[in-house]
Amino acid sequence: MTTETNAVSDAQTQVEQDLVDRVVASFDNTDNPRLKQVMQSLTVHLHDFIRDVRLTEEEWNQAIDFLTRVGHITDDKRQEFVLLSDTLGASMQTIAVNNEAYEDATEATVFGPFFVDDAPEIPIGGDITHGASGQPAWVEGTVTDTDGNPVAGARIEVWECDEDGLYDVQYTDDRMAARAHLYTNEQGEYRFWGLTPVPYPIPHDGPVGQMLEAVGRSPVRAAHLHFMVTAEDLRTLVTHIFVEGDPQLAIGDSVFGVKDSLIKTFEQQAAGTPTPDGRDLADQAWAKTRFDIVLAPAEK
Amino acid sequence: MTTETNAVSDAQTQVEQDLVDRVVASFDNTDNPRLKQVMQSLTVHLHDFIRDVRLTEEEWNQAIDFLTRVGHITDDKRQEFVLLSDTLGASMQTIAVNNEAYEDATEATVFGPFFVDDAPEIPIGGDITHGASGQPAWVEGTVTDTDGNPVAGARIEVWECDEDGLYDVQYTDDRMAARAHLYTNEQGEYRFWGLTPVPYPIPHDGPVGQMLEAVGRSPVRAAHLHFMVTAEDLRTLVTHIFVEGDPQLAIGDSVFGVKDSLIKTFEQQAAGTPTPDGRDLADQAWAKTRFDIVLAPAEK
Ligand SMILES: [Fe+2]
Ligand SMILES: [Fe+2]
Repeated sequence: MTTETNAVSDAQTQVEQDLVDRVVASFDNTDNPRLKQVMQSLTVHLHDFIRDVRLTEEEWNQAIDFLTRVGHITDDKRQEFVLLSDTLGASMQTIAVNNEAYEDATEATVFGPFFVDDAPEIPIGGDITHGASGQPAWVEGTVTDTDGNPVAGARIEVWECDEDGLYDVQYTDDRMAARAHLYTNEQGEYRFWGLTPVPYPIPHDGPVGQMLEAVGRSPVRAAHLHFMVTAEDLRTLVTHIFVEGDPQLAIGDSVFGVKDSLIKTFEQQAAGTPTPDGRDLADQAWAKTRFDIVLAPAEK
Repeated sequence: MTTETNAVSDAQTQVEQDLVDRVVASFDNTDNPRLKQVMQSLTVHLHDFIRDVRLTEEEWNQAIDFLTRVGHITDDKRQEFVLLSDTLGASMQTIAVNNEAYEDATEATVFGPFFVDDAPEIPIGGDITHGASGQPAWVEGTVTDTDGNPVAGARIEVWECDEDGLYDVQYTDDRMAARAHLYTNEQGEYRFWGLTPVPYPIPHDGPVGQMLEAVGRSPVRAAHLHFMVTAEDLRTLVTHIFVEGDPQLAIGDSVFGVKDSLIKTFEQQAAGTPTPDGRDLADQAWAKTRFDIVLAPAEK
Protein backbone atom coordinates (compact mmCIF):
# COMPACT_ATOMS: atom_id res chain seq x y z
CA MET A 1 0.00 0.00 0.00
CA THR A 2 1.22 3.48 -0.80
CA THR A 3 0.17 6.54 1.14
CA GLU A 4 -1.79 7.98 -1.82
CA THR A 5 -5.25 6.41 -1.58
CA ASN A 6 -5.85 6.29 -5.30
CA ALA A 7 -2.42 5.14 -6.43
CA VAL A 8 -3.24 1.88 -8.14
CA SER A 9 -0.79 -0.28 -10.05
CA ASP A 10 -1.25 -0.82 -13.77
CA ALA A 11 -1.91 -4.52 -13.17
CA GLN A 12 -4.60 -3.75 -10.60
CA THR A 13 -6.16 -1.14 -12.89
CA GLN A 14 -6.33 -3.81 -15.58
CA VAL A 15 -8.04 -6.28 -13.23
CA GLU A 16 -10.65 -3.68 -12.29
CA GLN A 17 -11.20 -2.54 -15.88
CA ASP A 18 -11.55 -6.14 -17.07
CA LEU A 19 -14.33 -6.62 -14.54
CA VAL A 20 -16.12 -3.47 -15.72
CA ASP A 21 -15.83 -4.70 -19.31
CA ARG A 22 -17.30 -8.08 -18.40
CA VAL A 23 -20.26 -6.53 -16.60
CA VAL A 24 -20.89 -4.13 -19.49
CA ALA A 25 -20.73 -7.03 -21.96
CA SER A 26 -23.27 -8.99 -19.89
CA PHE A 27 -25.90 -6.48 -21.07
CA ASP A 28 -25.02 -6.88 -24.76
CA ASN A 29 -28.01 -9.13 -25.45
CA THR A 30 -30.62 -6.74 -24.05
CA ASP A 31 -33.50 -6.51 -26.56
CA ASN A 32 -34.46 -2.98 -25.63
CA PRO A 33 -31.64 -0.72 -26.87
CA ARG A 34 -32.47 2.05 -24.40
CA LEU A 35 -32.43 -0.35 -21.44
CA LYS A 36 -29.09 -1.67 -22.67
CA GLN A 37 -27.69 1.87 -22.83
CA VAL A 38 -28.95 2.75 -19.35
CA MET A 39 -27.66 -0.45 -17.70
CA GLN A 40 -24.26 -0.22 -19.34
CA SER A 41 -23.84 3.43 -18.36
CA LEU A 42 -25.03 2.67 -14.82
CA THR A 43 -22.43 -0.10 -14.62
CA VAL A 44 -19.58 2.14 -15.72
CA HIS A 45 -20.47 4.97 -13.34
CA LEU A 46 -21.18 2.67 -10.37
CA HIS A 47 -17.83 0.93 -10.82
CA ASP A 48 -16.06 4.27 -11.28
CA PHE A 49 -17.45 5.34 -7.91
CA ILE A 50 -16.31 2.15 -6.14
CA ARG A 51 -12.86 2.41 -7.70
CA ASP A 52 -12.44 6.14 -7.11
CA VAL A 53 -13.14 5.99 -3.39
CA ARG A 54 -11.62 2.49 -3.01
CA LEU A 55 -14.82 1.50 -1.22
CA THR A 56 -14.05 -0.78 1.72
CA GLU A 57 -15.97 -3.98 2.41
CA GLU A 58 -17.22 -2.43 5.67
CA GLU A 59 -18.51 0.63 3.76
CA TRP A 60 -20.20 -1.67 1.25
CA ASN A 61 -21.96 -3.37 4.19
CA GLN A 62 -23.03 0.04 5.52
CA ALA A 63 -24.41 0.99 2.09
CA ILE A 64 -26.45 -2.24 1.90
CA ASP A 65 -27.78 -1.58 5.40
CA PHE A 66 -28.64 2.05 4.55
CA LEU A 67 -30.54 1.08 1.39
CA THR A 68 -32.34 -1.66 3.32
CA ARG A 69 -33.53 0.90 5.88
CA VAL A 70 -34.59 3.29 3.09
CA GLY A 71 -36.61 0.44 1.60
CA HIS A 72 -38.24 -0.53 4.85
CA ILE A 73 -39.44 2.97 5.83
CA THR A 74 -40.93 3.49 2.35
CA ASP A 75 -44.68 2.88 2.06
CA ASP A 76 -47.73 4.38 0.31
CA LYS A 77 -47.37 7.64 2.26
CA ARG A 78 -43.60 7.90 2.68
CA GLN A 79 -41.17 7.69 -0.25
CA GLU A 80 -37.67 7.67 1.20
CA PHE A 81 -36.03 6.78 -2.15
CA VAL A 82 -37.46 10.02 -3.57
CA LEU A 83 -36.09 11.91 -0.56
CA LEU A 84 -32.71 10.27 -1.17
CA SER A 85 -32.78 11.22 -4.84
CA ASP A 86 -33.87 14.76 -3.91
CA THR A 87 -31.17 15.28 -1.30
CA LEU A 88 -28.45 13.98 -3.64
CA GLY A 89 -29.63 16.44 -6.28
CA ALA A 90 -30.50 13.52 -8.59
CA SER A 91 -34.13 14.62 -8.92
CA MET A 92 -33.11 18.15 -9.80
CA GLN A 93 -30.51 16.90 -12.30
CA THR A 94 -33.19 14.78 -13.97
CA ILE A 95 -35.36 17.91 -14.22
CA ALA A 96 -32.38 19.79 -15.64
CA VAL A 97 -31.63 17.31 -18.43
CA ASN A 98 -35.30 17.12 -19.42
CA ASN A 99 -35.99 20.85 -19.40
CA GLU A 100 -33.13 22.39 -21.28
CA ALA A 101 -33.08 26.17 -21.38
CA TYR A 102 -34.99 27.52 -24.40
CA GLU A 103 -34.45 31.21 -25.14
CA ASP A 104 -35.99 33.14 -22.25
CA ALA A 105 -38.50 30.44 -21.25
CA THR A 106 -39.08 30.23 -17.49
CA GLU A 107 -36.88 27.66 -15.73
CA ALA A 108 -38.26 24.43 -14.27
CA THR A 109 -37.65 22.96 -10.84
CA VAL A 110 -38.67 19.90 -8.81
CA PHE A 111 -42.29 18.72 -8.76
CA GLY A 112 -42.26 17.55 -5.14
CA PRO A 113 -44.55 15.01 -3.49
CA PHE A 114 -47.48 17.29 -2.56
CA PHE A 115 -49.34 17.92 -5.82
CA VAL A 116 -52.90 16.56 -6.05
CA ASP A 117 -54.91 16.18 -9.24
CA ASP A 118 -58.28 17.50 -8.21
CA ALA A 119 -57.57 20.91 -6.69
CA PRO A 120 -60.56 23.29 -7.07
CA GLU A 121 -60.83 25.83 -9.88
CA ILE A 122 -60.89 29.49 -8.90
CA PRO A 123 -61.74 32.50 -11.07
CA ILE A 124 -59.04 35.02 -11.96
CA GLY A 125 -58.47 37.07 -8.82
CA GLY A 126 -59.82 34.28 -6.59
CA ASP A 127 -58.35 32.90 -3.37
CA ILE A 128 -56.54 29.54 -3.23
CA THR A 129 -56.17 29.39 0.54
CA HIS A 130 -59.56 27.90 1.55
CA GLY A 131 -58.81 28.50 5.20
CA ALA A 132 -55.07 27.70 5.26
CA SER A 133 -53.27 29.99 7.73
CA GLY A 134 -50.61 32.50 6.75
CA GLN A 135 -49.93 35.99 5.45
CA PRO A 136 -52.12 36.84 2.41
CA ALA A 137 -50.07 37.28 -0.77
CA TRP A 138 -51.34 38.77 -4.04
CA VAL A 139 -49.69 36.97 -6.96
CA GLU A 140 -50.05 38.26 -10.52
CA GLY A 141 -48.39 37.90 -13.86
CA THR A 142 -48.72 36.87 -17.46
CA VAL A 143 -48.17 33.74 -19.49
CA THR A 144 -46.52 34.30 -22.88
CA ASP A 145 -44.65 32.24 -25.44
CA THR A 146 -41.02 32.92 -26.27
CA ASP A 147 -42.07 35.38 -28.99
CA GLY A 148 -43.90 37.44 -26.37
CA ASN A 149 -47.41 36.49 -27.49
CA PRO A 150 -49.90 36.21 -24.63
CA VAL A 151 -51.17 32.69 -24.02
CA ALA A 152 -54.92 32.74 -23.33
CA GLY A 153 -56.51 29.82 -21.47
CA ALA A 154 -53.26 28.49 -20.03
CA ARG A 155 -54.03 26.25 -17.04
CA ILE A 156 -52.13 27.24 -13.93
CA GLU A 157 -51.98 24.87 -10.95
CA VAL A 158 -50.63 26.42 -7.75
CA TRP A 159 -49.99 24.79 -4.36
CA GLU A 160 -48.10 25.59 -1.18
CA CYS A 161 -47.80 24.85 2.53
CA ASP A 162 -49.48 26.83 5.32
CA GLU A 163 -47.65 29.00 7.86
CA ASP A 164 -46.88 25.87 9.93
CA GLY A 165 -44.94 24.41 7.01
CA LEU A 166 -47.55 21.73 6.28
CA TYR A 167 -49.41 20.93 3.08
CA ASP A 168 -53.12 20.08 3.39
CA VAL A 169 -52.36 16.41 2.56
CA GLN A 170 -50.09 16.21 5.60
CA TYR A 171 -53.10 16.69 7.88
CA THR A 172 -55.35 13.73 8.65
CA ASP A 173 -58.69 15.55 8.18
CA ASP A 174 -58.91 15.38 4.36
CA ARG A 175 -58.85 19.15 4.04
CA MET A 176 -58.17 20.70 0.61
CA ALA A 177 -56.47 24.04 1.12
CA ALA A 178 -53.75 26.30 -0.29
CA ARG A 179 -54.10 24.77 -3.74
CA ALA A 180 -56.21 25.56 -6.78
CA HIS A 181 -56.13 25.96 -10.54
CA LEU A 182 -57.12 28.88 -12.72
CA TYR A 183 -56.86 29.93 -16.38
CA THR A 184 -55.28 32.96 -18.01
CA ASN A 185 -57.57 35.52 -19.66
CA GLU A 186 -57.43 36.70 -23.29
CA GLN A 187 -54.47 38.94 -22.46
CA GLY A 188 -52.59 35.98 -20.95
CA GLU A 189 -52.99 37.47 -17.46
CA TYR A 190 -53.58 35.70 -14.16
CA ARG A 191 -53.85 36.83 -10.55
CA PHE A 192 -54.86 35.21 -7.28
CA TRP A 193 -54.64 35.46 -3.51
CA GLY A 194 -52.31 32.90 -1.92
CA LEU A 195 -49.99 32.88 1.11
CA THR A 196 -46.50 34.26 1.50
CA PRO A 197 -44.45 31.02 1.38
CA VAL A 198 -42.50 29.82 4.44
CA PRO A 199 -39.63 27.28 4.70
CA TYR A 200 -40.43 23.72 5.77
CA PRO A 201 -38.33 20.60 6.43
CA ILE A 202 -38.60 17.48 4.29
CA PRO A 203 -39.41 14.39 6.42
CA HIS A 204 -36.14 13.80 8.28
CA ASP A 205 -36.90 11.17 10.90
CA GLY A 206 -35.61 8.32 8.68
CA PRO A 207 -32.31 7.20 7.13
CA VAL A 208 -32.15 10.21 4.78
CA GLY A 209 -32.53 12.52 7.80
CA GLN A 210 -29.70 10.60 9.49
CA MET A 211 -27.55 11.08 6.41
CA LEU A 212 -28.26 14.84 6.38
CA GLU A 213 -27.38 14.99 10.09
CA ALA A 214 -24.12 13.07 9.55
CA VAL A 215 -23.02 15.48 6.83
CA GLY A 216 -24.16 18.62 8.67
CA ARG A 217 -26.92 19.59 6.22
CA SER A 218 -30.28 21.22 6.91
CA PRO A 219 -33.41 19.28 5.90
CA VAL A 220 -35.24 22.57 5.26
CA ARG A 221 -36.52 23.64 1.87
CA ALA A 222 -36.35 27.31 0.95
CA ALA A 223 -39.83 28.92 1.05
CA HIS A 224 -41.64 28.43 -2.26
CA LEU A 225 -44.95 28.44 -4.11
CA HIS A 226 -45.45 25.63 -6.64
CA PHE A 227 -46.65 26.25 -10.21
CA MET A 228 -47.51 23.87 -13.02
CA VAL A 229 -48.52 25.58 -16.26
CA THR A 230 -49.96 23.74 -19.26
CA ALA A 231 -51.05 25.16 -22.60
CA GLU A 232 -51.57 23.65 -26.04
CA ASP A 233 -48.46 23.34 -28.23
CA LEU A 234 -46.25 24.62 -25.42
CA ARG A 235 -43.89 22.74 -23.09
CA THR A 236 -45.48 22.03 -19.70
CA LEU A 237 -43.68 23.99 -17.00
CA VAL A 238 -43.27 22.61 -13.46
CA THR A 239 -41.63 25.20 -11.26
CA HIS A 240 -41.66 27.24 -8.03
CA ILE A 241 -41.17 30.83 -7.08
CA PHE A 242 -38.92 31.50 -4.10
CA VAL A 243 -38.97 34.45 -1.69
CA GLU A 244 -36.22 37.04 -1.88
CA GLY A 245 -34.71 37.50 1.58
CA ASP A 246 -35.59 34.01 2.84
CA PRO A 247 -32.58 33.07 5.03
CA GLN A 248 -32.84 29.46 3.82
CA LEU A 249 -31.70 30.62 0.36
CA ALA A 250 -28.26 31.28 1.86
CA ILE A 251 -28.24 28.12 4.03
CA GLY A 252 -29.21 26.06 0.99
CA ASP A 253 -32.41 24.43 -0.23
CA SER A 254 -32.29 20.79 0.90
CA VAL A 255 -33.29 19.50 -2.56
CA PHE A 256 -31.35 22.02 -4.69
CA GLY A 257 -34.49 23.43 -6.34
CA VAL A 258 -33.49 27.10 -6.31
CA LYS A 259 -32.66 28.99 -9.49
CA ASP A 260 -31.84 32.68 -9.32
CA SER A 261 -34.42 33.52 -11.98
CA LEU A 262 -37.13 32.04 -9.76
CA ILE A 263 -36.43 34.20 -6.69
CA LYS A 264 -39.14 36.88 -6.52
CA THR A 265 -39.71 39.91 -4.31
CA PHE A 266 -42.71 39.53 -2.04
CA GLU A 267 -43.30 43.26 -1.30
CA GLN A 268 -44.49 43.63 2.27
CA GLN A 269 -47.58 45.83 2.70
CA ALA A 270 -48.54 47.26 6.09
CA ALA A 271 -51.97 46.48 7.49
CA GLY A 272 -54.49 48.89 5.99
CA THR A 273 -52.67 49.34 2.67
CA PRO A 274 -55.36 49.22 -0.06
CA THR A 275 -55.38 45.86 -1.89
CA PRO A 276 -55.27 45.52 -5.72
CA ASP A 277 -58.83 44.19 -5.86
CA GLY A 278 -60.27 46.27 -3.01
CA ARG A 279 -60.45 43.26 -0.67
CA ASP A 280 -60.64 44.22 3.00
CA LEU A 281 -57.95 42.40 4.96
CA ALA A 282 -58.88 44.21 8.18
CA ASP A 283 -55.75 44.52 10.36
CA GLN A 284 -53.60 42.04 8.41
CA ALA A 285 -50.35 42.91 6.72
CA TRP A 286 -50.03 41.36 3.25
CA ALA A 287 -47.53 40.95 0.42
CA LYS A 288 -47.60 41.18 -3.34
CA THR A 289 -45.43 39.65 -6.01
CA ARG A 290 -45.25 39.31 -9.77
CA PHE A 291 -44.30 36.22 -11.78
CA ASP A 292 -44.32 36.52 -15.56
CA ILE A 293 -44.18 33.07 -17.09
CA VAL A 294 -42.67 32.29 -20.50
CA LEU A 295 -43.40 28.88 -22.02
CA ALA A 296 -41.10 27.12 -24.50
CA PRO A 297 -42.55 25.41 -27.58
CA ALA A 298 -43.58 21.78 -27.05
CA GLU A 299 -40.93 19.23 -28.02
CA LYS A 300 -41.51 17.86 -31.50
CA MET B 1 -33.29 18.79 -29.95
CA THR B 2 -30.58 17.39 -32.17
CA THR B 3 -30.46 13.80 -33.35
CA GLU B 4 -27.35 13.03 -31.27
CA THR B 5 -28.65 12.10 -27.83
CA ASN B 6 -25.72 13.50 -25.95
CA ALA B 7 -25.23 16.74 -27.88
CA VAL B 8 -25.73 19.30 -25.15
CA SER B 9 -25.25 23.04 -25.54
CA ASP B 10 -22.52 24.81 -23.61
CA ALA B 11 -25.14 26.76 -21.67
CA GLN B 12 -26.97 23.56 -20.70
CA THR B 13 -23.71 21.87 -19.74
CA GLN B 14 -23.03 24.83 -17.47
CA VAL B 15 -26.46 24.56 -15.82
CA GLU B 16 -25.90 20.87 -15.14
CA GLN B 17 -22.35 21.34 -13.89
CA ASP B 18 -23.43 24.19 -11.60
CA LEU B 19 -25.93 21.85 -10.01
CA VAL B 20 -23.30 19.14 -9.48
CA ASP B 21 -21.02 21.75 -7.90
CA ARG B 22 -23.78 22.89 -5.54
CA VAL B 23 -24.55 19.35 -4.42
CA VAL B 24 -20.86 18.56 -3.91
CA ALA B 25 -20.45 21.79 -1.89
CA SER B 26 -23.41 20.81 0.31
CA PHE B 27 -21.18 18.10 1.80
CA ASP B 28 -18.32 20.50 2.58
CA ASN B 29 -19.19 20.68 6.28
CA THR B 30 -19.15 16.92 6.89
CA ASP B 31 -17.13 16.26 10.06
CA ASN B 32 -15.94 12.81 8.96
CA PRO B 33 -13.47 13.35 6.11
CA ARG B 34 -14.00 9.86 4.69
CA LEU B 35 -17.79 10.28 4.65
CA LYS B 36 -17.31 13.62 2.92
CA GLN B 37 -15.12 12.00 0.26
CA VAL B 38 -17.56 9.15 -0.33
CA MET B 39 -20.65 11.39 -0.58
CA GLN B 40 -18.95 13.86 -2.89
CA SER B 41 -17.68 11.11 -5.18
CA LEU B 42 -21.10 9.44 -5.15
CA THR B 43 -22.67 12.75 -6.15
CA VAL B 44 -20.33 13.26 -9.08
CA HIS B 45 -20.75 9.73 -10.45
CA LEU B 46 -24.53 9.64 -9.92
CA HIS B 47 -24.94 12.95 -11.76
CA ASP B 48 -22.58 11.81 -14.51
CA PHE B 49 -24.84 8.80 -15.05
CA ILE B 50 -28.02 10.90 -15.23
CA ARG B 51 -26.38 13.35 -17.62
CA ASP B 52 -24.76 10.71 -19.84
CA VAL B 53 -27.95 8.78 -20.51
CA ARG B 54 -30.14 11.93 -20.40
CA LEU B 55 -32.35 10.04 -17.93
CA THR B 56 -36.02 10.78 -18.64
CA GLU B 57 -38.50 11.64 -15.90
CA GLU B 58 -40.38 8.41 -16.71
CA GLU B 59 -37.17 6.39 -16.30
CA TRP B 60 -36.50 8.14 -13.00
CA ASN B 61 -39.98 7.05 -11.87
CA GLN B 62 -39.22 3.47 -12.95
CA ALA B 63 -35.95 3.53 -11.01
CA ILE B 64 -37.73 4.74 -7.85
CA ASP B 65 -40.33 1.99 -8.29
CA PHE B 66 -37.64 -0.66 -8.87
CA LEU B 67 -35.70 0.32 -5.75
CA THR B 68 -38.93 0.38 -3.74
CA ARG B 69 -39.67 -3.19 -4.79
CA VAL B 70 -36.09 -4.25 -3.98
CA GLY B 71 -36.58 -2.72 -0.52
CA HIS B 72 -39.90 -4.40 0.09
CA ILE B 73 -38.80 -7.95 -0.82
CA THR B 74 -35.74 -7.64 1.42
CA ASP B 75 -36.06 -9.18 4.88
CA ASP B 76 -33.98 -11.21 7.36
CA LYS B 77 -33.72 -14.14 4.94
CA ARG B 78 -33.68 -12.39 1.56
CA GLN B 79 -31.25 -9.57 0.72
CA GLU B 80 -32.25 -8.22 -2.68
CA PHE B 81 -29.89 -5.21 -2.44
CA VAL B 82 -26.98 -7.66 -2.17
CA LEU B 83 -28.31 -9.53 -5.21
CA LEU B 84 -28.54 -6.21 -7.05
CA SER B 85 -24.97 -5.31 -6.09
CA ASP B 86 -23.82 -8.81 -7.08
CA THR B 87 -25.52 -8.78 -10.49
CA LEU B 88 -24.16 -5.32 -11.30
CA GLY B 89 -20.66 -6.56 -10.46
CA ALA B 90 -20.46 -4.00 -7.64
CA SER B 91 -19.78 -6.67 -5.01
CA MET B 92 -17.00 -8.19 -7.09
CA GLN B 93 -15.50 -4.75 -7.79
CA THR B 94 -15.48 -4.05 -4.03
CA ILE B 95 -13.63 -7.36 -3.56
CA ALA B 96 -11.23 -6.35 -6.31
CA VAL B 97 -10.28 -2.98 -4.84
CA ASN B 98 -9.80 -4.51 -1.38
CA ASN B 99 -7.75 -7.51 -2.47
CA GLU B 100 -5.15 -6.15 -4.81
CA ALA B 101 -2.95 -8.71 -6.51
CA TYR B 102 0.18 -9.44 -4.47
CA GLU B 103 2.89 -11.35 -6.30
CA ASP B 104 1.50 -14.85 -6.93
CA ALA B 105 -0.99 -14.83 -4.04
CA THR B 106 -4.24 -16.66 -4.82
CA GLU B 107 -6.99 -14.39 -6.10
CA ALA B 108 -10.10 -13.54 -4.07
CA THR B 109 -13.72 -13.67 -5.13
CA VAL B 110 -17.16 -12.98 -3.66
CA PHE B 111 -18.09 -14.23 -0.20
CA GLY B 112 -21.73 -14.99 -1.01
CA PRO B 113 -24.65 -15.25 1.42
CA PHE B 114 -24.30 -18.91 2.47
CA PHE B 115 -21.36 -18.98 4.88
CA VAL B 116 -22.12 -19.95 8.48
CA ASP B 117 -19.83 -19.45 11.45
CA ASP B 118 -20.12 -22.75 13.26
CA ALA B 119 -19.43 -25.39 10.60
CA PRO B 120 -17.94 -28.57 12.13
CA GLU B 121 -14.20 -29.29 12.24
CA ILE B 122 -12.96 -32.29 10.29
CA PRO B 123 -9.51 -33.91 10.42
CA ILE B 124 -7.23 -33.75 7.40
CA GLY B 125 -8.66 -36.23 4.90
CA GLY B 126 -12.13 -36.03 6.46
CA ASP B 127 -15.47 -35.62 4.71
CA ILE B 128 -17.38 -32.30 4.67
CA THR B 129 -20.57 -33.63 3.09
CA HIS B 130 -22.41 -34.96 6.17
CA GLY B 131 -25.04 -36.55 3.96
CA ALA B 132 -25.36 -33.89 1.24
CA SER B 133 -25.99 -35.54 -2.13
CA GLY B 134 -23.63 -35.33 -5.09
CA GLN B 135 -20.56 -36.81 -6.72
CA PRO B 136 -17.69 -37.31 -4.23
CA ALA B 137 -14.70 -35.09 -4.96
CA TRP B 138 -11.24 -35.40 -3.42
CA VAL B 139 -9.73 -31.97 -2.92
CA GLU B 140 -6.11 -31.51 -1.92
CA GLY B 141 -3.44 -28.87 -1.92
CA THR B 142 -1.08 -26.75 0.12
CA VAL B 143 -1.13 -23.38 1.79
CA THR B 144 2.06 -21.37 1.42
CA ASP B 145 3.15 -17.76 1.71
CA THR B 146 4.41 -15.79 -1.27
CA ASP B 147 7.97 -16.92 -0.52
CA GLY B 148 6.89 -20.53 -0.90
CA ASN B 149 7.07 -21.39 2.81
CA PRO B 150 4.41 -23.87 3.95
CA VAL B 151 1.84 -22.41 6.34
CA ALA B 152 1.10 -24.89 9.13
CA GLY B 153 -2.16 -24.56 11.07
CA ALA B 154 -3.93 -22.40 8.49
CA ARG B 155 -7.70 -22.58 9.05
CA ILE B 156 -9.60 -23.55 5.91
CA GLU B 157 -13.39 -23.11 5.79
CA VAL B 158 -15.08 -24.81 2.84
CA TRP B 159 -18.76 -24.79 1.84
CA GLU B 160 -20.80 -25.66 -1.22
CA CYS B 161 -24.29 -26.59 -2.45
CA ASP B 162 -25.58 -30.13 -2.95
CA GLU B 163 -26.35 -31.71 -6.34
CA ASP B 164 -29.77 -29.98 -6.33
CA GLY B 165 -28.05 -26.60 -6.22
CA LEU B 166 -29.11 -25.89 -2.64
CA TYR B 167 -27.03 -25.00 0.40
CA ASP B 168 -27.97 -26.65 3.71
CA VAL B 169 -29.29 -23.31 5.02
CA GLN B 170 -31.79 -23.20 2.15
CA TYR B 171 -33.57 -26.24 3.60
CA THR B 172 -35.99 -25.79 6.48
CA ASP B 173 -34.80 -28.74 8.58
CA ASP B 174 -31.73 -27.09 10.20
CA ARG B 175 -29.35 -29.57 8.59
CA MET B 176 -25.61 -28.75 8.57
CA ALA B 177 -24.06 -30.33 5.50
CA ALA B 178 -21.47 -29.74 2.78
CA ARG B 179 -19.51 -27.37 4.97
CA ALA B 180 -16.66 -27.79 7.44
CA HIS B 181 -13.32 -26.40 8.56
CA LEU B 182 -9.94 -28.06 8.85
CA TYR B 183 -6.32 -27.06 9.48
CA THR B 184 -3.19 -27.55 7.42
CA ASN B 185 -0.51 -29.90 8.76
CA GLU B 186 3.16 -29.08 9.43
CA GLN B 187 3.90 -29.31 5.69
CA GLY B 188 1.09 -26.85 4.93
CA GLU B 189 -0.96 -29.63 3.34
CA TYR B 190 -4.72 -30.15 3.43
CA ARG B 191 -7.10 -32.67 1.85
CA PHE B 192 -10.76 -33.54 2.22
CA TRP B 193 -13.72 -35.21 0.59
CA GLY B 194 -16.34 -32.81 -0.76
CA LEU B 195 -18.73 -32.79 -3.72
CA THR B 196 -18.06 -31.95 -7.35
CA PRO B 197 -19.67 -28.46 -7.54
CA VAL B 198 -22.77 -27.86 -9.69
CA PRO B 199 -24.24 -24.60 -11.01
CA TYR B 200 -27.18 -23.02 -9.15
CA PRO B 201 -29.34 -19.93 -9.73
CA ILE B 202 -29.35 -16.98 -7.36
CA PRO B 203 -32.89 -16.21 -6.10
CA HIS B 204 -34.55 -14.75 -9.19
CA ASP B 205 -38.25 -14.49 -8.35
CA GLY B 206 -37.93 -10.80 -7.36
CA PRO B 207 -37.09 -7.47 -9.02
CA VAL B 208 -33.45 -8.46 -9.63
CA GLY B 209 -34.66 -11.60 -11.42
CA GLN B 210 -36.96 -9.40 -13.51
CA MET B 211 -34.03 -7.18 -14.39
CA LEU B 212 -31.93 -10.19 -15.45
CA GLU B 213 -34.85 -11.43 -17.57
CA ALA B 214 -35.29 -8.01 -19.21
CA VAL B 215 -31.63 -7.88 -20.20
CA GLY B 216 -31.45 -11.51 -21.30
CA ARG B 217 -29.07 -12.68 -18.58
CA SER B 218 -28.91 -16.03 -16.79
CA PRO B 219 -29.35 -15.98 -12.98
CA VAL B 220 -27.10 -19.05 -12.71
CA ARG B 221 -23.77 -19.05 -10.92
CA ALA B 222 -20.93 -21.10 -12.37
CA ALA B 223 -20.32 -24.24 -10.27
CA HIS B 224 -17.96 -23.48 -7.39
CA LEU B 225 -16.61 -24.58 -4.02
CA HIS B 226 -16.13 -21.78 -1.44
CA PHE B 227 -12.91 -21.36 0.55
CA MET B 228 -11.97 -18.97 3.32
CA VAL B 229 -8.40 -19.32 4.54
CA THR B 230 -7.04 -17.56 7.62
CA ALA B 231 -3.53 -17.71 9.08
CA GLU B 232 -1.58 -15.48 11.41
CA ASP B 233 0.22 -12.53 9.80
CA LEU B 234 -1.25 -13.38 6.40
CA ARG B 235 -4.10 -11.75 4.49
CA THR B 236 -7.38 -13.62 4.89
CA LEU B 237 -8.41 -15.14 1.58
CA VAL B 238 -12.07 -15.49 0.57
CA THR B 239 -12.35 -17.31 -2.73
CA HIS B 240 -13.86 -20.14 -4.76
CA ILE B 241 -12.60 -22.78 -7.10
CA PHE B 242 -14.55 -23.28 -10.33
CA VAL B 243 -14.90 -26.41 -12.44
CA GLU B 244 -13.13 -26.58 -15.80
CA GLY B 245 -15.65 -27.52 -18.50
CA ASP B 246 -18.70 -26.16 -16.64
CA PRO B 247 -20.85 -24.74 -19.48
CA GLN B 248 -21.91 -21.85 -17.23
CA LEU B 249 -18.33 -20.52 -17.44
CA ALA B 250 -19.00 -19.66 -21.09
CA ILE B 251 -22.55 -18.40 -20.48
CA GLY B 252 -21.26 -16.18 -17.69
CA ASP B 253 -21.35 -16.35 -13.90
CA SER B 254 -24.31 -14.21 -12.78
CA VAL B 255 -22.24 -12.39 -10.14
CA PHE B 256 -18.94 -12.11 -12.09
CA GLY B 257 -16.98 -14.16 -9.55
CA VAL B 258 -14.89 -16.17 -12.01
CA LYS B 259 -11.16 -15.61 -12.41
CA ASP B 260 -9.17 -17.80 -14.79
CA SER B 261 -6.67 -18.68 -12.09
CA LEU B 262 -9.49 -20.17 -10.00
CA ILE B 263 -10.76 -22.61 -12.65
CA LYS B 264 -9.57 -26.10 -11.68
CA THR B 265 -9.72 -29.49 -13.35
CA PHE B 266 -11.97 -31.94 -11.54
CA GLU B 267 -10.53 -35.17 -12.99
CA GLN B 268 -13.34 -37.65 -13.47
CA GLN B 269 -12.63 -41.13 -12.07
CA ALA B 270 -14.68 -44.16 -13.14
CA ALA B 271 -16.48 -46.17 -10.48
CA GLY B 272 -14.02 -48.62 -8.94
CA THR B 273 -10.94 -46.43 -9.45
CA PRO B 274 -8.90 -46.69 -6.22
CA THR B 275 -9.26 -43.58 -4.04
CA PRO B 276 -6.28 -41.63 -2.61
CA ASP B 277 -7.11 -42.67 0.96
CA GLY B 278 -8.38 -46.17 0.19
CA ARG B 279 -12.00 -45.18 0.85
CA ASP B 280 -14.50 -47.58 -0.74
CA LEU B 281 -17.01 -45.61 -2.84
CA ALA B 282 -18.72 -48.82 -4.06
CA ASP B 283 -20.19 -48.19 -7.52
CA GLN B 284 -19.82 -44.40 -7.47
CA ALA B 285 -17.76 -42.40 -9.94
CA TRP B 286 -15.75 -39.65 -8.26
CA ALA B 287 -13.48 -36.72 -9.10
CA LYS B 288 -10.25 -35.27 -7.83
CA THR B 289 -8.79 -31.82 -7.94
CA ARG B 290 -5.86 -29.85 -6.58
CA PHE B 291 -5.88 -26.29 -5.26
CA ASP B 292 -2.59 -24.85 -4.03
CA ILE B 293 -3.26 -21.69 -2.05
CA VAL B 294 -0.81 -18.82 -1.71
CA LEU B 295 -1.51 -16.19 0.95
CA ALA B 296 -0.32 -12.59 0.74
CA PRO B 297 1.17 -10.89 3.80
CA ALA B 298 -1.36 -9.17 6.07
CA GLU B 299 -1.81 -5.45 5.41
CA LYS B 300 0.23 -3.34 7.79
FE1 LIG C 1 -43.10 22.21 -1.74
FE1 LIG D 1 -21.98 -20.22 -3.60
